[in-house]
Amino acid sequence: MTAFGRGGTGRTSWESIVELALAEDVGTGDVTTLATVSAGATARGTMLVKAPGVISGLEAAAYTFRRVDSAIVSRPLVEDGATVEQGTVIAELEGPARGLLIGERVALNLLQRLSGVATLTSKFVAETAGTRAKVVDTRKTTPGLRVLEKAAVRHGGGHNHRVGLADGVLIKDNHLAAVGGPDRVTRAIQSVRALAPHTLKIEVEVTTLPEVEEAVAAGADIILLDNMDVATMREAVRIVAGRALLEASGNVRLETVRAIAETGVDLISAGALTHSAPALDISLNFDIT
Amino acid sequence: MTAFGRGGTGRTSWESIVELALAEDVGTGDVTTLATVSAGATARGTMLVKAPGVISGLEAAAYTFRRVDSAIVSRPLVEDGATVEQGTVIAELEGPARGLLIGERVALNLLQRLSGVATLTSKFVAETAGTRAKVVDTRKTTPGLRVLEKAAVRHGGGHNHRVGLADGVLIKDNHLAAVGGPDRVTRAIQSVRALAPHTLKIEVEVTTLPEVEEAVAAGADIILLDNMDVATMREAVRIVAGRALLEASGNVRLETVRAIAETGVDLISAGALTHSAPALDISLNFDIT
Amino acid sequence: MTAFGRGGTGRTSWESIVELALAEDVGTGDVTTLATVSAGATARGTMLVKAPGVISGLEAAAYTFRRVDSAIVSRPLVEDGATVEQGTVIAELEGPARGLLIGERVALNLLQRLSGVATLTSKFVAETAGTRAKVVDTRKTTPGLRVLEKAAVRHGGGHNHRVGLADGVLIKDNHLAAVGGPDRVTRAIQSVRALAPHTLKIEVEVTTLPEVEEAVAAGADIILLDNMDVATMREAVRIVAGRALLEASGNVRLETVRAIAETGVDLISAGALTHSAPALDISLNFDIT
Amino acid sequence: MTAFGRGGTGRTSWESIVELALAEDVGTGDVTTLATVSAGATARGTMLVKAPGVISGLEAAAYTFRRVDSAIVSRPLVEDGATVEQGTVIAELEGPARGLLIGERVALNLLQRLSGVATLTSKFVAETAGTRAKVVDTRKTTPGLRVLEKAAVRHGGGHNHRVGLADGVLIKDNHLAAVGGPDRVTRAIQSVRALAPHTLKIEVEVTTLPEVEEAVAAGADIILLDNMDVATMREAVRIVAGRALLEASGNVRLETVRAIAETGVDLISAGALTHSAPALDISLNFDIT
Amino acid sequence: MTAFGRGGTGRTSWESIVELALAEDVGTGDVTTLATVSAGATARGTMLVKAPGVISGLEAAAYTFRRVDSAIVSRPLVEDGATVEQGTVIAELEGPARGLLIGERVALNLLQRLSGVATLTSKFVAETAGTRAKVVDTRKTTPGLRVLEKAAVRHGGGHNHRVGLADGVLIKDNHLAAVGGPDRVTRAIQSVRALAPHTLKIEVEVTTLPEVEEAVAAGADIILLDNMDVATMREAVRIVAGRALLEASGNVRLETVRAIAETGVDLISAGALTHSAPALDISLNFDIT
Amino acid sequence: MTAFGRGGTGRTSWESIVELALAEDVGTGDVTTLATVSAGATARGTMLVKAPGVISGLEAAAYTFRRVDSAIVSRPLVEDGATVEQGTVIAELEGPARGLLIGERVALNLLQRLSGVATLTSKFVAETAGTRAKVVDTRKTTPGLRVLEKAAVRHGGGHNHRVGLADGVLIKDNHLAAVGGPDRVTRAIQSVRALAPHTLKIEVEVTTLPEVEEAVAAGADIILLDNMDVATMREAVRIVAGRALLEASGNVRLETVRAIAETGVDLISAGALTHSAPALDISLNFDIT
Repeated sequence: MTAFGRGGTGRTSWESIVELALAEDVGTGDVTTLATVSAGATARGTMLVKAPGVISGLEAAAYTFRRVDSAIVSRPLVEDGATVEQGTVIAELEGPARGLLIGERVALNLLQRLSGVATLTSKFVAETAGTRAKVVDTRKTTPGLRVLEKAAVRHGGGHNHRVGLADGVLIKDNHLAAVGGPDRVTRAIQSVRALAPHTLKIEVEVTTLPEVEEAVAAGADIILLDNMDVATMREAVRIVAGRALLEASGNVRLETVRAIAETGVDLISAGALTHSAPALDISLNFDIT
Repeated sequence: MTAFGRGGTGRTSWESIVELALAEDVGTGDVTTLATVSAGATARGTMLVKAPGVISGLEAAAYTFRRVDSAIVSRPLVEDGATVEQGTVIAELEGPARGLLIGERVALNLLQRLSGVATLTSKFVAETAGTRAKVVDTRKTTPGLRVLEKAAVRHGGGHNHRVGLADGVLIKDNHLAAVGGPDRVTRAIQSVRALAPHTLKIEVEVTTLPEVEEAVAAGADIILLDNMDVATMREAVRIVAGRALLEASGNVRLETVRAIAETGVDLISAGALTHSAPALDISLNFDIT
Repeated sequence: MTAFGRGGTGRTSWESIVELALAEDVGTGDVTTLATVSAGATARGTMLVKAPGVISGLEAAAYTFRRVDSAIVSRPLVEDGATVEQGTVIAELEGPARGLLIGERVALNLLQRLSGVATLTSKFVAETAGTRAKVVDTRKTTPGLRVLEKAAVRHGGGHNHRVGLADGVLIKDNHLAAVGGPDRVTRAIQSVRALAPHTLKIEVEVTTLPEVEEAVAAGADIILLDNMDVATMREAVRIVAGRALLEASGNVRLETVRAIAETGVDLISAGALTHSAPALDISLNFDIT
Repeated sequence: MTAFGRGGTGRTSWESIVELALAEDVGTGDVTTLATVSAGATARGTMLVKAPGVISGLEAAAYTFRRVDSAIVSRPLVEDGATVEQGTVIAELEGPARGLLIGERVALNLLQRLSGVATLTSKFVAETAGTRAKVVDTRKTTPGLRVLEKAAVRHGGGHNHRVGLADGVLIKDNHLAAVGGPDRVTRAIQSVRALAPHTLKIEVEVTTLPEVEEAVAAGADIILLDNMDVATMREAVRIVAGRALLEASGNVRLETVRAIAETGVDLISAGALTHSAPALDISLNFDIT
Repeated sequence: MTAFGRGGTGRTSWESIVELALAEDVGTGDVTTLATVSAGATARGTMLVKAPGVISGLEAAAYTFRRVDSAIVSRPLVEDGATVEQGTVIAELEGPARGLLIGERVALNLLQRLSGVATLTSKFVAETAGTRAKVVDTRKTTPGLRVLEKAAVRHGGGHNHRVGLADGVLIKDNHLAAVGGPDRVTRAIQSVRALAPHTLKIEVEVTTLPEVEEAVAAGADIILLDNMDVATMREAVRIVAGRALLEASGNVRLETVRAIAETGVDLISAGALTHSAPALDISLNFDIT
Repeated sequence: MTAFGRGGTGRTSWESIVELALAEDVGTGDVTTLATVSAGATARGTMLVKAPGVISGLEAAAYTFRRVDSAIVSRPLVEDGATVEQGTVIAELEGPARGLLIGERVALNLLQRLSGVATLTSKFVAETAGTRAKVVDTRKTTPGLRVLEKAAVRHGGGHNHRVGLADGVLIKDNHLAAVGGPDRVTRAIQSVRALAPHTLKIEVEVTTLPEVEEAVAAGADIILLDNMDVATMREAVRIVAGRALLEASGNVRLETVRAIAETGVDLISAGALTHSAPALDISLNFDIT
């Protein structure tokens, strides 16, 4: 097992949320299972997808079972990121029956949620096919699941915005208000450039075209167009002409994403990918021996 | 501040998920805020609800800000469980501007999600008005948020099923399969009765009316009717005649919950309350001084 | 190794107390062992019981050694719950000599204490033979050892009361005082029924026969008879007539438990099982090679 | 509040065991208290000793309540180490009623156990009055309570042996066996002297008078006389004549400790102080307002 | 107190290293202080700098004392980043004498090391005065002190490179070797651009001028010139002509940094700032009352 | 793997600092490596010493890699404590390429620092050859690295002073000031003897010869001569005449240590061993396959 940063999921340290989820679910023990399943019993299980979608979370689910009992073996039959039909068996499990029953709920809670995020992302991505726009996530993620949900977005074909406050600069309206003055966009960018590691690009949120022009002039690397209408965004693309990346943001929905993408923006961020994705229905069936 | 078990939320130890959420979001620091907001700046903020709903999570949001900077003061203007109109200001905040900006996202992520759960629950509860059925949650909660989401269900007028595997006995199909034999319902109940603390009721999941009868005869305190149609549930109610609590379960939706409630069951459990509740839209506006 | 909920001990997450015990005992290192035992030395050890008793804690002891050095192998020769004679070898150990010497004290401190609890419990159980009364534990356990001591009680033939405050309702004198009024028993039961998960039985502590009657009428599932004399308890059994479980409590001793059991109560709880059990004398002898 | 090393208790970091004890007892919340005691209720409590004894653990008990709710105030009326009569009120408490009820059991479990250790120690100390022998503890302490129980021994008038493996050298039979050879006592002492910090005295366990002589010759600072009879110990005292400290050890009981003390040994260690001390009966009575 | 991201230090979560340092130093308690300083004694202390330098770590030192005893008050007389003469009193302390003595060593170990880093950085910065080159740190920091040492570099007038592996892309020789092929610089940059959040700039390490040209052509934002001589670096500056930032790296010393800065590079990184900074001598004198 | 106290390093529980160092360096993941190195790639690496020195930290470096990916195998080619020439390959590594690249920096940061301490210590030890003086460390260690740096001192041929405040008594000037009065040395020693475990020697810091005499008379086991000149120390040796150990302390440098050793003191302590040791230059070269 790997503790830091490998494989499909790729980022770290989501083990903590698995520990927390097991602690809150198992508490001082699963009375029902201990009473009805003997210590020596083993079981085989299959994970079945009950609706079409994109899978994410197989590594987290496997880790969950391993934490419950290190003798449980998980065999994924697809990879995270796979698009599957209803009825697909995506993984097989084998090991002590007690551990399998104890870990089932937490593993499914993770897998269903993450696959839901990947599936919804894939729909946004499909809508933007043929445009230059990348679909990116936000920080509106489930508390404790940031790294896993960011991976799920990638599994769905999307891209990641900054993971947290430390790996990206995003000057928002409140920051601009704190700086104040008519040239606040320019001065905010200068302040950040003086302090931030040179490895970070500087992004600034604007609401008007004059602010777009000021941001470009001040050397912004990325400009977030906040809640602009499509016509204004198209004009912003024309003005900037490649001198900075443009990110469209604000109440982006499946119904509106294509029109936004066709304005020529580089990035479209949608909180919905992580805060409104319905779970993908996945079940786990056991054969106890 | 209270570490264990107070007030509206009522259960413990959800502080861990707040710590985890802050750690993943703030990481090694908020570069943007440090560069654009001076150390001495203070701010006032208001939390505004942008859609009608039921509020839950005010204590968790307040704790989030306190953890970021203990000098931040939160003043809730409503209580968890309050039904509010669009445009209601539900809380005021005051304190160091940097801390307010750093804590904003995590606090809102919690508050929006929990208020979403409370709001959806209140809709299920409204549908069942006038019947004997209580709307109850399941273990299909967001990993790490179990205790907070269970409180949100109560804030929405629902009731809680067991919090985890330790505070309730629920003999499910896989447990029955492990016990095996034609009298598996009876023998499973006997095994549990021999092991479990006497403070726990015994619930068993059944799929047929003969199993209902066997469960009652074996002394089950609660019988979960799994995916039964309405007519069969009505018959189960007639058969049991108050000798055990009856819980309806399986793909319960807003459209179907009234019909289920009118069968006369005591409890209706719905995973959707916690795994499919859309977030309630809440914003936080600052006035930096 | 299993982190959650398996096997003889059956409940979770007692690993924490083992970690804490090792940290406090080993600190920054065992100077004596490092100076006198070479890094490559191996040893075999045998655990010998020096007085008759009932064994509990073998899994915790084995885990202790594994945490010190994962190369140490423990082979239990009896199971937790076994009744053994003086002179019985209950386990063999093999592995790096340094690790065995470093882990010895913590492992024995656990094993001796838990076997002491199991042994004392078995004496209470023997006294109540032939009656309907189950001997149950209380929350007067050693801080940090709750789950292990509850398992030890089961190993000794006893049964468990609720594990903690979350998996059982017990309305005590102070709760009744907080509710107040002449019908406080009834109203307390109603308040709890409105809030608590339906999976929990409701137990109420009473001191008089009228309160017993009120509790039954209010639908209490279990009634704790606090410090009643034997004659009064017998009368309570007659009054209740099976409509609720009756638990005798208050200064229960080996000398008095039989008379209490013969009153016909269902449960007898004794704090002494866990707070006054003398340790069972167990030694560990090494053969270093 | 102090995190490290203050006052009567004097050593650190026993907060961990309090956290663990609260976590295992409170779990996901105290359903009973939340249902029967209103959020705004306050209470006053008094701690009453129900048998004569020596008090220890007041700081740990106070910390327990503070961790449950920081608004709870504890006022000790005696100090740790005080000898009290039956019926003495040793502390008053005041604060939110819910928190007081939730913290009660853990606080009493700690206080009763630690006062039990102090009380038993004081009896051993009384037995040795007028001799040169100090009564000292061992590492046979309750897992997780090492530092608190060592303080309790001091409160009872005893002295501490090393706290753990890092702050003292004690060469025992298994270490001598690992060194091997006819001059193993000498060589073990030499090995330790070469490795151990010079701040640690070197103690060696011996079983015969020739080994006593060898230990003195090799420069042992302390010699543990393991399970020697009184006459042999007296001879050891004569032989050593002050050139090293002598510690009597092995099955020391209240009935035998005086005779041992009169041999002239410097130290008498007794595992019973911590592994066999009966709890001191202490109750907590509330007045809820 | 603030847990996340405030003030001079600016980044989080260095509290962990303070906890760890106190745990390893205080262990089970400060025997000497407990024996010689009474519980009620208070003291005043002054922190005196014994050599000229730049101060860093005042917040960490103050936190250390607060963790030992929350009653200790620290009053800094200068700010982090201040340049001070030998003999300057930089802070006053007041509070319980025991806590002050117990915390002294850890607080000074932190303050001396961090001020050493700030002082050394200020010398590198002085050497580069008048050039465009910023002095930046590396990841060659003391384990556990990353965030504090990065702040110390800023206090000394330097700038920060990425804090860790997540907030910057740096393609090094081993990454290029893994990609392989003659166009490995180009292909590595493309691979990163496809995966990394768009908020991160892309930096690549090169050793030859043709690689510099390839990196610019492939769109690298920053180019690290690894161990190039001054003439080659000057040529790289000429070739790149502002199309990317240039970072000089490799065995940069105080004696060589000016010549490097004069080549016209934008950044000069030096591991020595954090792995070879001698401690600044600071003492703490108490007046116990 | 061993969690407590085995092998070359010998003390525990340095795993914490490795966890902390990895967390701060890896954060939410190594973007660069994930983009440029495929999941299945493996690599072999060699650790090469680039300057002569004494090695320490091999076990910590190996543990670092194992924590990143348990599939990484480390093969040390020398032992901690080995004196090596420039160009020596001290270890080989093999395993998943991603994990090797992710763990590289933390492993080297530890190994270089610890080998630096061992190397500097060996120089002090060489200077004192032929004298009775042992070179010992202090508590002026790197926060979080206490146990590892103490091991490094032993690897360099030095000896350890107490590890922390709990495993040694050292009465310093501030303690003496707290005791006060003309006979403060005597009374401080008496106070400590009454409280401290008998396993600890008592050391007192003095600055004058009369204090040396008082300390001996009061039974001090060790006397620290604080900042005395060589002539005075020689006189102290003469006066004490073996009745106590003498430790020279205060600004001990490589240039002065021989003269101090020749005074006849038993111990010479030098903070420089741990707070001023330059890192030993060690590189890690990979061959990715």
